[in-house]
Amino acid sequence: MAINRNSLRGKLFIIIFGANTKRGRLFDVFLLWFILISILVVCLESVPKIRDQYESVFFYLETFFTIIFTVEYFLRIYSHPKPLKYLLSFYGIIDLLSIIPYYLTYFSPASHYLITIRILRLLRVFRILKLSSFVHHAQVLKSALASSLQKITVFMLFIVALVLIIGTIMYVVEGEENGFTSIPQSIYWAIVTITTVGYGDLTPQTSLGQVISSIVMIMGYAIIAVPTGIVTVEMSRSQPPVASKVDQAECLSC
Amino acid sequence: MAINRNSLRGKLFIIIFGANTKRGRLFDVFLLWFILISILVVCLESVPKIRDQYESVFFYLETFFTIIFTVEYFLRIYSHPKPLKYLLSFYGIIDLLSIIPYYLTYFSPASHYLITIRILRLLRVFRILKLSSFVHHAQVLKSALASSLQKITVFMLFIVALVLIIGTIMYVVEGEENGFTSIPQSIYWAIVTITTVGYGDLTPQTSLGQVISSIVMIMGYAIIAVPTGIVTVEMSRSQPPVASKVDQAECLSC
Amino acid sequence: MAINRNSLRGKLFIIIFGANTKRGRLFDVFLLWFILISILVVCLESVPKIRDQYESVFFYLETFFTIIFTVEYFLRIYSHPKPLKYLLSFYGIIDLLSIIPYYLTYFSPASHYLITIRILRLLRVFRILKLSSFVHHAQVLKSALASSLQKITVFMLFIVALVLIIGTIMYVVEGEENGFTSIPQSIYWAIVTITTVGYGDLTPQTSLGQVISSIVMIMGYAIIAVPTGIVTVEMSRSQPPVASKVDQAECLSC
Amino acid sequence: MAINRNSLRGKLFIIIFGANTKRGRLFDVFLLWFILISILVVCLESVPKIRDQYESVFFYLETFFTIIFTVEYFLRIYSHPKPLKYLLSFYGIIDLLSIIPYYLTYFSPASHYLITIRILRLLRVFRILKLSSFVHHAQVLKSALASSLQKITVFMLFIVALVLIIGTIMYVVEGEENGFTSIPQSIYWAIVTITTVGYGDLTPQTSLGQVISSIVMIMGYAIIAVPTGIVTVEMSRSQPPVASKVDQAECLSC
Repeated sequence: MAINRNSLRGKLFIIIFGANTKRGRLFDVFLLWFILISILVVCLESVPKIRDQYESVFFYLETFFTIIFTVEYFLRIYSHPKPLKYLLSFYGIIDLLSIIPYYLTYFSPASHYLITIRILRLLRVFRILKLSSFVHHAQVLKSALASSLQKITVFMLFIVALVLIIGTIMYVVEGEENGFTSIPQSIYWAIVTITTVGYGDLTPQTSLGQVISSIVMIMGYAIIAVPTGIVTVEMSRSQPPVASKVDQAECLSC
Repeated sequence: MAINRNSLRGKLFIIIFGANTKRGRLFDVFLLWFILISILVVCLESVPKIRDQYESVFFYLETFFTIIFTVEYFLRIYSHPKPLKYLLSFYGIIDLLSIIPYYLTYFSPASHYLITIRILRLLRVFRILKLSSFVHHAQVLKSALASSLQKITVFMLFIVALVLIIGTIMYVVEGEENGFTSIPQSIYWAIVTITTVGYGDLTPQTSLGQVISSIVMIMGYAIIAVPTGIVTVEMSRSQPPVASKVDQAECLSC
Repeated sequence: MAINRNSLRGKLFIIIFGANTKRGRLFDVFLLWFILISILVVCLESVPKIRDQYESVFFYLETFFTIIFTVEYFLRIYSHPKPLKYLLSFYGIIDLLSIIPYYLTYFSPASHYLITIRILRLLRVFRILKLSSFVHHAQVLKSALASSLQKITVFMLFIVALVLIIGTIMYVVEGEENGFTSIPQSIYWAIVTITTVGYGDLTPQTSLGQVISSIVMIMGYAIIAVPTGIVTVEMSRSQPPVASKVDQAECLSC
Repeated sequence: MAINRNSLRGKLFIIIFGANTKRGRLFDVFLLWFILISILVVCLESVPKIRDQYESVFFYLETFFTIIFTVEYFLRIYSHPKPLKYLLSFYGIIDLLSIIPYYLTYFSPASHYLITIRILRLLRVFRILKLSSFVHHAQVLKSALASSLQKITVFMLFIVALVLIIGTIMYVVEGEENGFTSIPQSIYWAIVTITTVGYGDLTPQTSLGQVISSIVMIMGYAIIAVPTGIVTVEMSRSQPPVASKVDQAECLSC
C-alpha cells in the first residue's frame, strides 16, 4: 500500500499518476496533446474525401496512438499499488474503453470511430494539472446539478408520460398517411416538438393535428421554464465552496 | 364507512387500495409491471412491421391485460366502502378510461391505441408505494407551478392575442401563394415561430415577411424569459415542505 | 367635465364606459362576446374551403358586427365628456382601428382581415369587468418587464450588431449559390439560428459555414440566458403590489 | 502627453476624440449617421436585384464613405498624443478593420462586404455621446457576464465533449447513407440538436437513431437550464453600480 519511491514501480507511479514532479507534469502535458491529436485524427478520417487520400497515414497514426495508450494502460496497471482498484475505477474503465475500439475494428469496421470516447480521458488531465479554477467551477456546477437531480428526474418522468400521451393522440389524429407511422414515431415527434427542436421531418398535416400541436408547443414553452427554475434555485442556494478546499483534496491514486 | 377487516370486501380493500401489507405491496408491484408491459405492447403493435408479424399475439396480450384491468376495476368498485365516491374520483375515472378504448375498438379501430392513457395509472402506484422522495419533489414542483399558474395564464392570454395579430399580418403580407393559406394556418405558423420550434414547413418567402418574422423571433427570444422568470421566482419563494409531512398524509381511500 | 347622470349623454356614458351598474356590466359582457365572435368569423372566413361555401353569410356577419362597433364608436364619442381626449386615447385609437379595415376592403380586399386587431379591445373589457386577479398579475408582469426594458434594449442592440456581422460573414463564406443570396437574407438566417428557431429553409452547405454556424448556435445557447436572467432578477426584486391598490384605481374615463 | 489646446493637433484631438464641445458632439453625430448609412449601402448592394440596377451608385457611395473614414483614421493618428497607443487600441484596430475591406476588393471581390464590421465603431459613438443609461446597463450586463464567464467556459467544454461523443455514436449508428457522412458532420448535427435549433437538414432515419436523438433532446432540455441558472445567479449577486460612477470615468484618449 505504501509507495516505495525508489523502486521502478514507485517512480513510474509518481510520473504517471502524479503531477507534482517536473516529469509527472511533462507526462500529463504529452498525454493531453496525444489525446487531442488522436481524436482529431479519427474525426478527419471519417470525412470521405480526406480518408480516400490519406488512408494509410491515418491507419499508421491510429495504430501509433493506440500502441502508446495501450502501453500507458499496462504501465498504469503495473505501477498502481492496487491494480484491481485502478481497473475498476471510473478512470480505469475510461482508459480501457478508449483503446478497445481500435482492436474491435477487425470485427466491426465502424466501431473504431468510438475511439473518440478518449475525450473523457481529458477529465483526468484537467484534474491532475490542477486547473484549479476550472475544477472549482465544475464542482459548483456539479453540486448544484446533483442537488436538483431528483427534482429534474420527477420532471423528466412527467415529460415522458406527457410525451407518450401526446404521441398516441397525434398517431390517432394524423395517422400513418401523414408520416406518423407508429406510436414510437409519434413520440419521437412529440419530443422533437416539446423540446422546441422542431426538425420539421414530421409535421402535422390535418387541421386538428395543427391545433393539438399548437397547444403542445405553448405547453412546451411553459414547461421549459421548470428545469431552468429548478437549476437556478439550486445554484443560488449552493454556497460556492472555498477554492483551497478543492486543491487540498488531491488524490494521487485515481 | 368503517372497514371490516375480516370480511372479503375488507380484505380485498386492504390489498387493492392499501400498500401496508405484504400482499398489498405485491399487488401494486404486479400492477406497475402490468401497466408498463401493456403500454409497451400497444406501442409495439402500432409499428407496421411488427404488427404484421405478430398481429394475433398482440391481440391476445391486449385482451389479457384488459381483462385483468377490467376485473381489477370491478373489484375496486366492489371492495370500496363508498363505490360511487371511487367511481367519480380522479383515479376512478382514469381506471375507467384505461379500459374503455379496448372495447371501443369494435366501433373505431384506431381508438384502442388510446389505451396508453394507462400511464396515468402509474401516478397512483407511485403514491401507494410511498416513493416518498419522488412524491415530495413532485409536491414542491406542483405547489410552485400552482402559485405561478395565474401569472402564466395572464402571460398565455397575452401570447394568444399576440399570435392572432401576428398571424393575421403574415396572412395579409405573405398570402395564400406562399403557403399561408388561412388565418388559422398563419396563427399555427406564428406559434411555431414564437415558441422557437421552427419546423420550417411554412416559412416567409417575401422580403417584408422575413423582416416581420425576424422581429417576431427576436420578440420570442425576450418573451421566453417571462415564464422562466415567473417559475424561478415562485420556486425560490416556496419553502420546501418537510418530507415527513408528506408521508403522514397517506390516504387509503384513493 | 362633470357628468350629468340624468341626461341621455350621462346615462349612455355610465352604461358604455362604466361597469358599476347592471346595464353597464351587461353591455360589457355583450361587447366581449361580439368581439370574440367577430374575430372567429374573420378567422373562419380566411379558410378557402369555408369561405367558398358561406361567402355571403360571412359578408353579412362582418357587416353586422362592423355596424354595431361603428355605432358603439360614435356613441362613445357622443357620450364622453371630453370627446377629443377619448379619440386620442389608447383605447380610442384601438376602437377606430378595429372598424377601419372593413371600410378599406373596397380599396384593398385583403386588408379586412386586419379586423383581428379587435382582440386588443378585450384589454378594456378585462379592465372594466374588474377581473382583478388577472389585472393584478398583469400589473406585476408589466412592472417587472418595464424595469428590465432598458437592459433588454441594450441586449437587443448587441444582438442586432452581432447578427449583422454574422450575417455578413456567412454571406461571404456561403455565397449566393448556397441560398445566402444577400446580406439581409443572411441576417435573416442569423436571426433564425441565434434565436434557436431553426426553420431549415437556409442551411450552411460548406464545411466552413457549418463550423461558423456551430459556433453561432453555441453562442446563442449562452446568449439566451441573458434576457431570462434579466427578467428573473427584476421579477424577484419587484415586490408584488397589494391587490386592493389596483382595484381602487378604476378609471371611468378610459 | 499634455494636449496643447491651441495647436491644430490639439483642436483636432478635442473635436475627434472628445464630445464635450459643440463641434466635438456634432462630429460624433455625423460619424454615427455616416456609419449607419454606409452599412445600409453595403447591405442593399448585396441584394442582386438592387445591385444590378444601381451598381455605379453603390460604388461611388462606398468610395465616398471609405475616403471619409480613411481621412478620419489618419486625422486620428495625427491628432492623438500617442499615435502608437491609438493604433494598437481596441478602437484603433476596429477603425482600421472598417476601411481595409474596401481596398481588398481588388484582390477578393466578396471581401468588401466585410465593411459591415463598421457597426462596431458605434460602440465608441455610444460611449462618447454619453448615452449614460445605456452605458450603465451595458456595464451591469458586462460585469455579470464576466463573473459567470469561467463557469460558462467549464460548461462549454462539457458541451463540446458531449457533442463529440454523441456525434460519433450517431455517425456509427446512422452511417453515411442517412446523411451523417462524417464525424464533423455528425457533430454539427449534435450541436444543431442540443441547442434546440433543429434545422432538419440532417435527421435520424433509423429507429435506434431516433431513440438516441430523443434522449439527446431531453438532455438538451435540461442542459439549457445551466447557462440560464449561471447568468441569473450572477446577475442577482452583482449589485448595480451607481450610474454617476460610470459617467465620471470618461476617457478622452480612447
